[in-house]
Amino acid sequence: MLNPADKDFEALLLDHLPAEVLRPVEPRYAEEPRGYFKGLIGLLALPRTVEEVSTLIRCANAARVGVIPYGGGTGLVAGQVIPDGPAPMVLSLERMNAVREVYADENVLVAEAGVILADVQAAADAADRLFPLSLAAEGSARIGGNLATNAGGTGVLRYGNTRDLCLGLEAVLPDGQIWHGLTRLRKNNTGYDLRNLLIGAEGTLGVITAAAFKLFAQSEQTGTALLIVPSPRAALELLSLGRSQLGEAISAFELMNRQGFDFLTEVLPHVRQPFATPPEWCVLIELGLNGGLDAAEAMERLLVAALEAGLVTDGLIAQNAQQAADFWAVREQLPEANRIIGAVSSHDISVPLRALPDFIEAGAKRIADLGDFRINCFGHLGDGNLHYNVFPAKGKSRDAYSNQRDQVQRSVHDLVHEVGGSFSAEHGVGRLKVGELERYGDPAKLSAMRAIKAALDPRGIMNPGAVLRMGAS
Amino acid sequence: MLNPADKDFEALLLDHLPAEVLRPVEPRYAEEPRGYFKGLIGLLALPRTVEEVSTLIRCANAARVGVIPYGGGTGLVAGQVIPDGPAPMVLSLERMNAVREVYADENVLVAEAGVILADVQAAADAADRLFPLSLAAEGSARIGGNLATNAGGTGVLRYGNTRDLCLGLEAVLPDGQIWHGLTRLRKNNTGYDLRNLLIGAEGTLGVITAAAFKLFAQSEQTGTALLIVPSPRAALELLSLGRSQLGEAISAFELMNRQGFDFLTEVLPHVRQPFATPPEWCVLIELGLNGGLDAAEAMERLLVAALEAGLVTDGLIAQNAQQAADFWAVREQLPEANRIIGAVSSHDISVPLRALPDFIEAGAKRIADLGDFRINCFGHLGDGNLHYNVFPAKGKSRDAYSNQRDQVQRSVHDLVHEVGGSFSAEHGVGRLKVGELERYGDPAKLSAMRAIKAALDPRGIMNPGAVLRMGAS
Repeated sequence: MLNPADKDFEALLLDHLPAEVLRPVEPRYAEEPRGYFKGLIGLLALPRTVEEVSTLIRCANAARVGVIPYGGGTGLVAGQVIPDGPAPMVLSLERMNAVREVYADENVLVAEAGVILADVQAAADAADRLFPLSLAAEGSARIGGNLATNAGGTGVLRYGNTRDLCLGLEAVLPDGQIWHGLTRLRKNNTGYDLRNLLIGAEGTLGVITAAAFKLFAQSEQTGTALLIVPSPRAALELLSLGRSQLGEAISAFELMNRQGFDFLTEVLPHVRQPFATPPEWCVLIELGLNGGLDAAEAMERLLVAALEAGLVTDGLIAQNAQQAADFWAVREQLPEANRIIGAVSSHDISVPLRALPDFIEAGAKRIADLGDFRINCFGHLGDGNLHYNVFPAKGKSRDAYSNQRDQVQRSVHDLVHEVGGSFSAEHGVGRLKVGELERYGDPAKLSAMRAIKAALDPRGIMNPGAVLRMGAS
Repeated sequence: MLNPADKDFEALLLDHLPAEVLRPVEPRYAEEPRGYFKGLIGLLALPRTVEEVSTLIRCANAARVGVIPYGGGTGLVAGQVIPDGPAPMVLSLERMNAVREVYADENVLVAEAGVILADVQAAADAADRLFPLSLAAEGSARIGGNLATNAGGTGVLRYGNTRDLCLGLEAVLPDGQIWHGLTRLRKNNTGYDLRNLLIGAEGTLGVITAAAFKLFAQSEQTGTALLIVPSPRAALELLSLGRSQLGEAISAFELMNRQGFDFLTEVLPHVRQPFATPPEWCVLIELGLNGGLDAAEAMERLLVAALEAGLVTDGLIAQNAQQAADFWAVREQLPEANRIIGAVSSHDISVPLRALPDFIEAGAKRIADLGDFRINCFGHLGDGNLHYNVFPAKGKSRDAYSNQRDQVQRSVHDLVHEVGGSFSAEHGVGRLKVGELERYGDPAKLSAMRAIKAALDPRGIMNPGAVLRMGAS
């Protein structure tokens, strides 16, 4: 069993570290955005160097005290809060917030874990490069948390998930050892892929303190359009058509549903809506072009071919940056509208592209069988990643459905599982989905995960209770 | 200690498997391309299904018999041969050679581990898609081996290493459990990244039996050129310029040195040489374009800008497919010329791009200090990956240098290490570089690797002696 991060542990830390590494506990570190969980905190540590992180972890390991690595606190699966058990030490990386170096000629940037995602983007931009990770919480999420959760977002279609953007890591392992793996190399086949093991492990196998990232050329021109499609199936065919015309140049492909527009009208009427009558389905498409290609021409060419093929019935091509921003604002305000309406159950799922149209139809039927709900199904269509959120019927409150929440979630996740999908596409497991992982996870993989966790963190101090439920050691 | 794959073990296997899974041992499975190692083989197993692989591994684990997963046998670091100790079971995947499915609309292909790389490429091509992994041994290397070694090659610059192309795996873990992880999902954050742990583990953590791969749009047009550059530094600036003009469209960027052309003249005179006088340095550049871009125009534009900037002094743009093939033939015949000349020591290294020009200079000096050698330094410049091969002076034989081999290798690898590079960029560790990994590897990473190996394969049956030297368990 673990011990609490109490006065004795504080005394141990102060034997090895300057007092300013510790700070009085603040309640905001005990909260997570959706308010499902409220965390316990024994001590709050704000180290400034990897050596201080190492000392903190070494002490925690010696004293068997649980540690929560803490980034921007924006995670949606309660990976950052421990609701019960011995109070842990929260180890926030916020003071390790330097962009250590930008190697523009190598297309590489090295940042500490506490840098806010938007600041990483800005540092790349200042060097005339693109750091393509982009997501709603980018103004407060920290890059270490993005790595720990392998964050996704709108750029995955073209540039991959966070793990795909990372070349090397500096990290502290559960025994306090520092792994100096901050390589900028594109090719390095020298042993097991510890980098990818730590990425996505949600702080359960160590603390990431810095990372080397890939940068990319900025696009010379971008083009943005909102295209009305007759069905999700047509949207997928439109993506295929776009790729055959433009290769990798499609940098975003987001699906939106009429329900989302209706929610905006209902609770965020100030958001400028592009269509007089909201379409049943539409896609927001963005092109990023180089090589002298003209964005307007490329978009026009795609639109003409799509109209001819019946994949698009109508559409709006942004004529300037303001219009493009307006289109994106619609997409980006959907989560806020959802939050205000209040979901009975939200699902961050992915399914194989081919299964997606049938999934949307079958899902609607299953939910209708359960009662009177509204579904806002939208998201990163090109990745097969849907935010499939189920809401009360109009005029009803989510509280009226509280006894159906589990049933709705089970119904959606069962269907996802049946078609070979994932119950967590981009948010991770955290504490919210530990049960889902046990239910739907592959048994061989789960047993390998437990063996790895026990081998690297035999005392179970790293983010205890997240991802895996381990037996008492 | 392990037991040999002997008659008793054969009897055990025949209790659980049909006799046709076993085959008489053939000597070719005991050989590796460079002939440094000669392997021992107790039994040869050729399973046809993942279930048969599982039974073989389960029996090997029970009997403590070592297993070598065997692909095409083309690996260059002796990962596929055990030269001493109890004779292992060689488990060749060659009968699991089906492309299970091509999902062209999803840009996904699912292949069994025994499919030859060129056949994966062909299956993608038949569906009008690109599978971009490309390397010299593609006609005989099997995709399972490519995964196990995280193979690189010429396409890494644009499309990444083998791990970057893989979406999901089916594999048998060291205890015989089957991991059904053959997902086609682009986003799936449900626990530790077992996929990337097995990729690059060189068969020491399990046997990969099938994989789902990403496909890409084929290029509408390709352009190929051989450009003479004044220096490696200019070559890197040319790459930077090309990327700012063309984004991701540069699909190959290979450096060649005068020494390579001289070797071709010396031992492969039939290879058509593009330049009357071989240049000191040149790059082979390939563009793959979509969106209606004209390859000739794009190449011309790049060449003009490069000439103006002094990054290129002269060059040849391929005017047709035959010329492009001729340019590539020069690059692709370099390894064969090297083989005939006979290297004193070959090095598959990578260094940070910024360090590369100085590395080439400093390396030449260090080698000159050791004696009279010729250096053929060429390779995947855009990845910082050089094949840095050291040869006897003209007219001398490699045997005359046999007592200097270790010194040359140490000298090169020390310099690589000093500049933050890797002693194995794309070939892996195998048995040839176990000592190098112990010497240059990060201690924290090595200790984590040992812990993972012990946790997943406590009896040490999987490819024993490769990658890590473990104590007797």
